[in-house]
Amino acid sequence: MTSTADSWTAVEHPGLIALDWGTTRLRVFLLDHQGAVAAQREAPWGIQQLPGTSAAEGFNQAFEGMVGDWLARWPGLPVIASGMVGSAQGWREAPYLTCPIEIASFHRHLTTVTSLSGTPIHIAPGLVLPSQITSAGSVLADVMRGEEIQVLGALSIKPEWATQSCIVLPGTHSKWVWVEAGKVTHFMTSMAGELFAVLRQHSILGRLMPTAMPADSAHWAAFEEGLSLAYAAAPGMLISLLFSARSRVLTGELSPDESSDYLSGLLIGCELAAALKQPHGRALTPLGLVGAPELSRRYERALGWVGHRPTAVLDNTAPQGLWKVALSAGLASQLGQAHAA
Amino acid sequence: MTSTADSWTAVEHPGLIALDWGTTRLRVFLLDHQGAVAAQREAPWGIQQLPGTSAAEGFNQAFEGMVGDWLARWPGLPVIASGMVGSAQGWREAPYLTCPIEIASFHRHLTTVTSLSGTPIHIAPGLVLPSQITSAGSVLADVMRGEEIQVLGALSIKPEWATQSCIVLPGTHSKWVWVEAGKVTHFMTSMAGELFAVLRQHSILGRLMPTAMPADSAHWAAFEEGLSLAYAAAPGMLISLLFSARSRVLTGELSPDESSDYLSGLLIGCELAAALKQPHGRALTPLGLVGAPELSRRYERALGWVGHRPTAVLDNTAPQGLWKVALSAGLASQLGQAHAA
Repeated sequence: MTSTADSWTAVEHPGLIALDWGTTRLRVFLLDHQGAVAAQREAPWGIQQLPGTSAAEGFNQAFEGMVGDWLARWPGLPVIASGMVGSAQGWREAPYLTCPIEIASFHRHLTTVTSLSGTPIHIAPGLVLPSQITSAGSVLADVMRGEEIQVLGALSIKPEWATQSCIVLPGTHSKWVWVEAGKVTHFMTSMAGELFAVLRQHSILGRLMPTAMPADSAHWAAFEEGLSLAYAAAPGMLISLLFSARSRVLTGELSPDESSDYLSGLLIGCELAAALKQPHGRALTPLGLVGAPELSRRYERALGWVGHRPTAVLDNTAPQGLWKVALSAGLASQLGQAHAA
Repeated sequence: MTSTADSWTAVEHPGLIALDWGTTRLRVFLLDHQGAVAAQREAPWGIQQLPGTSAAEGFNQAFEGMVGDWLARWPGLPVIASGMVGSAQGWREAPYLTCPIEIASFHRHLTTVTSLSGTPIHIAPGLVLPSQITSAGSVLADVMRGEEIQVLGALSIKPEWATQSCIVLPGTHSKWVWVEAGKVTHFMTSMAGELFAVLRQHSILGRLMPTAMPADSAHWAAFEEGLSLAYAAAPGMLISLLFSARSRVLTGELSPDESSDYLSGLLIGCELAAALKQPHGRALTPLGLVGAPELSRRYERALGWVGHRPTAVLDNTAPQGLWKVALSAGLASQLGQAHAA
């Protein structure tokens, strides 16, 4: 568990505990009575890697381990969560809302689970996009959990994006979200992040790569070569291009150190082709980038390289989104005041 | 270890021990003095999953375990091997030959390693295709080990393919090999097989899939839906289509049982698009399919579905290829005769 602002004991007016609980990470935030982040912690307790011997035990252990001391100090402080914690493999399933959907309506669809210690946790819903398979082309069913709350948080920082925008959220499963007139009208998932991880860890491609890849020493030339090859590639070519992350090392064209960034470039280049080169008619400006700074830098560079410079780059906006939901649901203002010193 | 023809002790005129030693499997063949398979055995001792505590120990243990009794009965019987056993991660590196390359020349480039028990193992070389990056388009460096021997074996069964053919070898890393005037002129690797395995075993997509997928109960409608979606997809779309193997289960459009064949269809459809839809000008007929029957059936169906019915389907031709190499190198005829009863 890593934490910042360890001086949480100095917080005088706590308003909300916000949980951003994904597949691989659990991020928790202590917000003050105005919604500002007073303290945050992070652990690798995503829903796929919980502690404990059963799922129920795992969710409770992770929850108590991460925010137990905050709740002991301020019993009754409201808790709200988003992400895979609300999936069928989560703590309690929070049914999907169907797109297009009013972003301001999320707070009306919370699901509650109670921890072993008796704390209610309000879980935000995910979004589903139904399949539309027509003779003119196919849009396949897609789902998200957690990113819809980050979109809500981004709109609280950039209200002008509510009219029309494309918001990119890089991650294990990157999401490209199109917003129009206050609604999520469309979105697309890319598996670039998870493909990168499983190919590095479990495929022949990882055999030649260094085990760690610090962002500070990224090989940008190799990244951009992979990016440009994949972005320009003909249909289907990714399945063959991927192997070049091995064969080009064997022929001496890439160093083992470079091959990891080259693979990252291939995958992100493929994602950009899927999102930007289709004649889908959806707006690509303003283009917002929301997520962890290290990964956002990589996407910002990639987007700029193909001529789509982001309008703004925001850090994870989950706390802002969860604060908005809590306010709208009447959770945060009530208890935030109740807990004021 | 699985073996057939356990009556190997009845073999009277052994000619060669042939090893088809890949990344995930080791297949060994006892050939008679005319090159026919008299006995064969198979084990999961590919070079990535050897027994023993070190690579050297692993290669020796696997070798002795698989063919030790044959060599005890017929000391001095020649042994020849192909595949990843000759890679940098193999038992002894056998340098690549550069394409275009005469298929009849492979026997002039054998590398030898000697087992702990003193048996020389002659390892066939792999092939490399150098990168050609031009303004007109890119062909990236590619490599193969083992399939070039299967191509040689296929040509010994179908000599007419030597003039001009496209030979498809499905597997962990499928190869599409173009033959012209007795030479391998070009080839392409597809990672469809390894992607299928790592996504099933290590990604979120596998979470909803049954752990075993017997070929006899393949869900062909789901396979063909994945195939057609990927074959028709715009550039880059695979990275997004893959996630539909999860989202369409969550929306009830696919059953968990079907999602595995759907994913297989997506990946093979992508491979077929990469190989068949590019204007590369290489011949696609006659089209030969060479490999394990179960996987070949899947590819035969897929190829037929997109209008490219194979001219012939052959089982693994590694033993025929290794026999040809051994004959040309003067290994098999000599000792085959020496061991005749």
